[in-house]
Formats: sequence, C-alpha cells, structure tokens
Amino acid sequence: MLDAWGHVSIRHPVNPDRYLLSRARAPALVAADDIMEFDLDSNPVDQRGRRVFLERFIHGQAYRARPDVNAVVHSHSPTVIPFSVTGEPLKAISHIASFLVKEPPVWEIRDVGITQGLLVTNNTQGESLAKTLGDRPVALMRGHGNVVVAPDIKRVVHRALYTEVNARQLATALSFDRPITFVAPDEAQDPKRLDDAWEVWKTEAMQGG
Amino acid sequence: MLDAWGHVSIRHPVNPDRYLLSRARAPALVAADDIMEFDLDSNPVDQRGRRVFLERFIHGQAYRARPDVNAVVHSHSPTVIPFSVTGEPLKAISHIASFLVKEPPVWEIRDVGITQGLLVTNNTQGESLAKTLGDRPVALMRGHGNVVVAPDIKRVVHRALYTEVNARQLATALSFDRPITFVAPDEAQDPKRLDDAWEVWKTEAMQGG
Amino acid sequence: MLDAWGHVSIRHPVNPDRYLLSRARAPALVAADDIMEFDLDSNPVDQRGRRVFLERFIHGQAYRARPDVNAVVHSHSPTVIPFSVTGEPLKAISHIASFLVKEPPVWEIRDVGITQGLLVTNNTQGESLAKTLGDRPVALMRGHGNVVVAPDIKRVVHRALYTEVNARQLATALSFDRPITFVAPDEAQDPKRLDDAWEVWKTEAMQGG
Amino acid sequence: MLDAWGHVSIRHPVNPDRYLLSRARAPALVAADDIMEFDLDSNPVDQRGRRVFLERFIHGQAYRARPDVNAVVHSHSPTVIPFSVTGEPLKAISHIASFLVKEPPVWEIRDVGITQGLLVTNNTQGESLAKTLGDRPVALMRGHGNVVVAPDIKRVVHRALYTEVNARQLATALSFDRPITFVAPDEAQDPKRLDDAWEVWKTEAMQGG
Repeated sequence: MLDAWGHVSIRHPVNPDRYLLSRARAPALVAADDIMEFDLDSNPVDQRGRRVFLERFIHGQAYRARPDVNAVVHSHSPTVIPFSVTGEPLKAISHIASFLVKEPPVWEIRDVGITQGLLVTNNTQGESLAKTLGDRPVALMRGHGNVVVAPDIKRVVHRALYTEVNARQLATALSFDRPITFVAPDEAQDPKRLDDAWEVWKTEAMQGG
Repeated sequence: MLDAWGHVSIRHPVNPDRYLLSRARAPALVAADDIMEFDLDSNPVDQRGRRVFLERFIHGQAYRARPDVNAVVHSHSPTVIPFSVTGEPLKAISHIASFLVKEPPVWEIRDVGITQGLLVTNNTQGESLAKTLGDRPVALMRGHGNVVVAPDIKRVVHRALYTEVNARQLATALSFDRPITFVAPDEAQDPKRLDDAWEVWKTEAMQGG
Repeated sequence: MLDAWGHVSIRHPVNPDRYLLSRARAPALVAADDIMEFDLDSNPVDQRGRRVFLERFIHGQAYRARPDVNAVVHSHSPTVIPFSVTGEPLKAISHIASFLVKEPPVWEIRDVGITQGLLVTNNTQGESLAKTLGDRPVALMRGHGNVVVAPDIKRVVHRALYTEVNARQLATALSFDRPITFVAPDEAQDPKRLDDAWEVWKTEAMQGG
Repeated sequence: MLDAWGHVSIRHPVNPDRYLLSRARAPALVAADDIMEFDLDSNPVDQRGRRVFLERFIHGQAYRARPDVNAVVHSHSPTVIPFSVTGEPLKAISHIASFLVKEPPVWEIRDVGITQGLLVTNNTQGESLAKTLGDRPVALMRGHGNVVVAPDIKRVVHRALYTEVNARQLATALSFDRPITFVAPDEAQDPKRLDDAWEVWKTEAMQGG
C-alpha cells in the first residue's frame, strides 16, 4: 500500500493538539527514534536536525478539522490514481470497504494554485484538502493519491488497504458494462475482529508481503 | 484466497449432526487447539470461553440442507465480488473449474432484511443462503463473497481456488467482446490427482504463497 | 506457468522413438527417480507400478508428427485460456514472443467427440491435436490450456513462458480499442542468450517465483 | 522491471566519451567483474574475451546525442509494450511519473529497414532511436520495450520503474471510458527524497521483489 513516499500519523495520545509522524523517511526504513511530534500547524516541536515531510500539512489540517480523527494515512495507492483522474466514483462494492458509502471526493490541487509536483506543502493547501474531505473517511487527490482518516490506527490501516482492494474490484466490475449494486448506506458497518486482521497484516508486512 | 476473515469447516467425521470450525481467528493464525465443534444450529458444543465466528450459520445451514456436503469454505475471493454485484454469470471457461457448469446463483441478503455489514449472523439468513445455493457447489453473496461446498476438504479447497482463477480468466475473456464458449455440462468432471495438487497447495500455503 | 497439473517432456537423447516424462506428479514435486520412458504410442517402457499421466498422448503424438521437435510442454497457462474460448487470435506483439508469428490455432476437442474433463487421454485425440498444431510452435486447447513444442528444452520453456506474457500484454493492448501492430513474419527471430535466461529462470523457480 | 534481457549503463565518471555497461549477462547475475568500458561508437575498450551486448548501440548513441544524460536503461517493461504497438499515448497521470509530461515517442525500427528480432545492433539504428528520443526522458520501441535516460543513476531507475507503474494505472484509467486529466507541464517536478527511495528499491531488489 505504501511505496517509498507514503506516511502514517497518529494524534498524540495525551495532547490532542499534537500529532506524531516519522521524520522524512520511506515507511519501510522507519525506526522508533524517527518519530517526531508536531503541532497542528505542522511545526516540529523538537526537530533536532531531523528532516521533516514536506507533506505533513495533510496530517495537521486533518487533525484540526476533524476532532473525531486520531490516525491519518497518506498514500499513492496504485489503483486509486485512475479514479482520481477520471472522476469515476470510487464507491463501495464490498462489505469490507463499506466505509466508502460516503463517496470519496476528488480534491483538485489546481483550485488553490498551480503546484509543481502536486505536493501539499503548506497550511493553505492542507486546509483546502481537509475541507474537501469533509466528514468522510477518504479523499482522493487528483493525479497524486489519497488521504485516509479514522478514529484509530487499526481502522486507518484497514481503510487504506481496502480502498485499494475495492478500487481493483470496482475497475473489474466496471469492465462488465452492467449496472452495479453498490453497498447501501444502511448496510455499512465497521469490520469485526480488526485485532485479528491487524496481526495478519503485521506478519505480512514483516515478510515484505 | 482467504483474507483475515475467511473460514473453512468440515462435517464431523463420526457425528454427521456436528461440524468442526476454528474459533474466530484469521485462518493464518489458527492452531489445532482452536478447532471447535458445533451442532447444525451452530451452537458451540464446548465453548470454553472461546470467541466464535459470527458467520458460522453459513456452515451449519449448508450441512443441514446438503447431506452430500462434508466441507464448506466461506471467503471474500477478490475477483468473485465483481460478479456478485453485476449479475454477470460466473460460468466455467476452464476444465479445472468445470464444477461451475452449475452456474453459481447470487444470494441477495437484502431479501431477508436490511443487514448492517452484510454478514450472515443467524439461522434465518443461513437457511436462505442454503436455499439459494440449492444443489450447486458455489453461491455468490452480493457485495460480500462466496460459499463453496464439496463432499470433502480437498475438493472444497480446489473449488474455492478455481472459482477465483476462473473469475479472473472470465473477466479477461469478457473484455474481448466476442462470443465465449463455456464448458458444456457434458464436459464437466472432477479434477484428477487432487492428492497431488493438495501437496502443492500445502507447500505454497506454508510459504505464504 | 505450470500449476499442479502441467507437464514437460523431452525426446530421448539416443532413441528418437522414445520420450522422457515424469510419472504423474505435480511438477513442483518431481524428483530424478520419477522420470519414465515412453514409446511414441505413449506406452511406458518400464512402468514399475508408477502412475502415468493420463495426458501423455499429447507428447507422444507431437513427437511422432514433428521430427523437428525435441521438447514439449503442456500447461494451463492462465491468460491463454481466455484466447482459447473466444477465438481472439493470440498473435505476437513483442519481439521476445515472435515465435507466435505463426498464429496458434485453437484445437476443439469436441470435434473428436464429447470428452468429460476435456482431457487428452488416447492416441486419437493426441493425433488430432498434433494435426491442428501443424508446423507451429503453440496450439491452444479450448477451455483447457496449450501445448508448446521446440527443438530443445530451453526454447520450449522460453516459448511456454512468453506465450503467457504475450497473452497478458495483448489483452491490455486489445482494451485500448486501437489498431495493433503485430510482429511481422520477417521480424521473427529466436531470442539471444537463452543460456543466460535459463539461469535466471532456474533461480526463480528454486525460489518459488 | 528488468527481465533476463534488460540492461543499465552509466556514463564514465571521468571520461565523458566512455560509458560503463556489464558484459552480456542477465542483470540478476551481474558481478563487479562483469562491468566493461565502451567508447561512444560502442566498441569495447578492453574486451578480454567477454561477450558484449548486441544492443549496446542504444546506450552509445544516447550518450552521444544527449550531453545531459549520464545513465541509460533499456528494458522490456511489460505494460509499456501495449502502448508501443497501439500508439495510445503514454502520458503522465501521476505526479511521481510527471517526467512523462514530455510524451514518449514511439520508435519504429522498420523505418530504418527490416530487422529480424527487432534488436538495435548497429550505430545506424542506435542513432535513429536517439533522434526519435530527442530531448525526452523516455522513448518506446515498437514491439520491443523502451529506453529511459536521466542525469544520474537514481533518476534513471526511478523513471524506468514509474514508466511501468504509470502505464498500468493509465491502462486502468482508459478502461473507464471517461476524459482523463493528465499531469500538466506546469505541474511536473522531479521526485523528492530519491536517496530514500533508492534504499527501499535496493532492499527490494536484494529480496528478489
């Protein structure tokens, strides 16, 4: 799910006006010592010369706008990109991805100015993205990737993974050229036994899977 | 084939009114001690505080309705989902999947009431699913996955695997926009040398393949 | 390329009226002791109670019809199946698969009678398949797989692998709905440095890749 | 990205009229001792009986035509082939592949004569390919693969990898049959933290991933 440029953060467990994010490093390389603390303007609290993610403003503004959010993932999920550049709605077709019944909006960075690299590198852009996200769990970023939010770390990882899985399945369903039955809002529900799935994902991650 | 939420059961080898299913755990994590016994109403015979699968009713009702069935798989087979939400028939195009000549029906859980999470969590739902399955080896569950049944464990694993393989191949064949020659009913046959394939699948499973 | 049911044979290096094929075992499980000798009618020369492949007639009849052939692969190559059931021509779009400029014909087993399981289990069927193959390197078997022939073992493995690769690439090219430039007959050529590729494939096979 | 036949070269760090390329070996098998030096006509400076790549002329002519180029990859990137045979433009839909805003041209080897195997085996062909490439980072070679150039080794590997990733994502986007928003020229930018990504790619390559 995460290539060399994705990142995961959590809200500070004690101080809700802070969040924790690794220094600028590929997720596969991060160690405990790389974790840094930021305020909601995404200023590092204790930088100690460590390089910070240019795109930390995605996280800071999501925490500011959404008191219910305690974990954020930004990724370049591969099959989400095609949805982000076509406007094809990425709606839930599988119960495990039923959080997508709140259809992910597509954020167009060009609306806040021309941006080389399409990166979110300041609070104005981060705020605009958070506004597009609204009360939903996922927003697509045109030609770039997506941002996923949740009340806790396990749910944010679940959502990030199954946004990709649902995207692949929906691409196949669309190729059949038939009407599609999406998951209905009254059928949505958080998945069960996430602790258990979490163990499986950790094992797979350790094996490079 | 199985993600963190699939499950496999067998009918009790001595008492046909019982079946064996692991406690609620991801298949990759299950140990011998996790195997539990259930009656056909899916009550645990000896719970000892172990957490049981919410969806065990899929298994109990399949064993009740089908005396010929001794093994059941429930999975979220990824390429089966697109067929389940479009009504595109998942018919056999390969001889190894010729059990699909009995075209899998799609079970619509909404027919027995609105269900958050689309899960099968009681005997009424399980019975309805078993009724839709009828005398076939596979039924699709809309927006959720599939249930696969067979006279023994090797055949149920074969069928679950090749339902997915055939789904992928059929999705490609459909993209060619040409008439498709499906396997004809008089060409269907159980695969040969399943013992041998079983050894290969076990090795692959151990390697996380 | 080979699932639990594929098989590879070579013509006997000394006696051209014989060929060598493992006993009936999944390729991943075969050991030196499993190799058996057959005549061109596919009778085992020295059976010693070993189980023989039902489909050995594919090999025997290919060696009989094609003196230029010294190695044969039969596989259920996954992306070849969709071509076999639609009549979509599996022509070469990549120079590494330029052996496909001789367009693979599709063999319809039903032409020699209704066959449960679509298996080639006698010399009549084997001969019919060899006749459809003609002077080409690959023939598709409807709803079943393909047979690949070559002057030696390295080339037959190369052809079997790149029949699958070309099938995947062509399926993508077809999805673009544009005219396709196929490799022209005057552009076809056997690949260079096959010894080298052979080393890579062996390493990958050992790693289960 | 590289099969048994791809190759990577760099311009000589001291003598810009020379380049370094391994002897003719599959990339997975190359050792330090296999690295050879060539002049820009692709004559080996010190052959010592080592076999040279037939297609080294791709490299020599690219270095001659492009003083800004210090690293070259030639590969048979699988999902690039379908673009090379259909003329479907391989344009950037993702910011990480924004180097593709300079749309890759397709080089037709037939324009410089009929060529068995579609290989670039002399300076005339190499020069023609370099001319088609022009000032762009990538050119497709019809029915064969692609050539990728960059100012340094990390960027050439990044570009070769993400040409393939963007090709896959674009093939999916095209299947939706909707207008596509490509990355605009004023949005293009080299990726950040390439050192970091480089570490991840090296680890993955070592694991055979």
